[in-house]
Amino acid sequence: MITSKQNETVKYARKLSRKKYRKQENALLIEGLHLLEEARHHGLLKQTFHTETSAQFEDGLLISRDVMKHITDSAHPPKDIGIAHMPPQGSVGQKVLILENIQDPGNVGTLIRSALAFGFDSIIIDESADVFAPKVLRSTQGAIFHIGFTYMDAVTFKENYPGHMLIGAHLSDTARLNKQPTPPYALVLGNEGSGLKQSTIARLDASVVIPIATIDSLNVAVAGSIIMHALYASKPLLG
Amino acid sequence: MITSKQNETVKYARKLSRKKYRKQENALLIEGLHLLEEARHHGLLKQTFHTETSAQFEDGLLISRDVMKHITDSAHPPKDIGIAHMPPQGSVGQKVLILENIQDPGNVGTLIRSALAFGFDSIIIDESADVFAPKVLRSTQGAIFHIGFTYMDAVTFKENYPGHMLIGAHLSDTARLNKQPTPPYALVLGNEGSGLKQSTIARLDASVVIPIATIDSLNVAVAGSIIMHALYASKPLLG
Repeated sequence: MITSKQNETVKYARKLSRKKYRKQENALLIEGLHLLEEARHHGLLKQTFHTETSAQFEDGLLISRDVMKHITDSAHPPKDIGIAHMPPQGSVGQKVLILENIQDPGNVGTLIRSALAFGFDSIIIDESADVFAPKVLRSTQGAIFHIGFTYMDAVTFKENYPGHMLIGAHLSDTARLNKQPTPPYALVLGNEGSGLKQSTIARLDASVVIPIATIDSLNVAVAGSIIMHALYASKPLLG
Repeated sequence: MITSKQNETVKYARKLSRKKYRKQENALLIEGLHLLEEARHHGLLKQTFHTETSAQFEDGLLISRDVMKHITDSAHPPKDIGIAHMPPQGSVGQKVLILENIQDPGNVGTLIRSALAFGFDSIIIDESADVFAPKVLRSTQGAIFHIGFTYMDAVTFKENYPGHMLIGAHLSDTARLNKQPTPPYALVLGNEGSGLKQSTIARLDASVVIPIATIDSLNVAVAGSIIMHALYASKPLLG
């Protein structure tokens, strides 16, 4: 059992909690047996660490609970973690979700999870919380290995993929979307506080607004998920 | 300006970050001008603290940034906080949301925010994250002062309010809800991992399940919000 925080593999794993090192090493740190299995299934698993012997990961390194706390910087450390290769940049598909400056890791993770559940096949990231941050990975519940990521802003996206209908969750002069569109399309969601960028709003082909009972707004992960559900569902939820 | 962490009002404010003291003192700590205004509007504001003089809260106490960090236990402390009286326990209305053992503070806060947006008038809490915890308050965005809270489990609720249709977000033998029900009704959402309690499932009058494209599940705040939207909306979002 490894009990030293100075162990080289331990030091390497800990560094991956920082975005800079994830990028440099093209690797990420994942937690929980479910994600480890997902990474292995996709041929991306490099190394696992466990606080108790694992039948599923016989070659994993046994480490002390203290070392696990150190690597994950968590007061309630998981029992099983691993280092995985960064999934390759995905291709752009027919049903695209664009995350524009979404800052809360929980929102980014929840939106990725909903995108997968509602049949979206690709995610475009522009200035949002890092998809491979531990907090985001926890919220995605494994979706990260099932969907392609590309880094681009909405304007560049629309230039490169003019055939995709660009749909904004935004109250604007743009035509309201009044039926399920035929793919290809891209739903773009904006920042928690300030919404979509003006440059993005200017390129929208259609918009969707969710009527609510108050002057307050919905959480962006909720609003985005309600719209993705409406785009996906073959019939209304009630009826 | 107060610069001492030993100041009695500062010590009192800091204690309110713990549930035990919130209960004992029947008071809570709130952050941000929006929430302070909400609390004042409802006659519940006791005392405010600011790191810079506030025109809106002239009687507020000026404190150093260090003291603000100490009170809020935050690396990125807000500029304005306050102590408010706990809102009185609400009455049970016609459109009720029951949160059963929902543990993530972000999920509880997001669900309260969505409930308000979709016209729900009361929330029943059973074994969930504390509604008045700072993390929950941040996610609710002020909804906390606009909706009534009652503490009860779903079985007791159904005994006390037999006229409310009890709707579960649960795949079961219970009849599927196939149209918008007439109030009164109560939507009950269960734990992130284990779902609804067996005792609750046994009392359901109807259930709603959101069809998805994968074997994974939706985040409970997303699923609950999609159902609340379907209960609220007068027509489908697209069409």
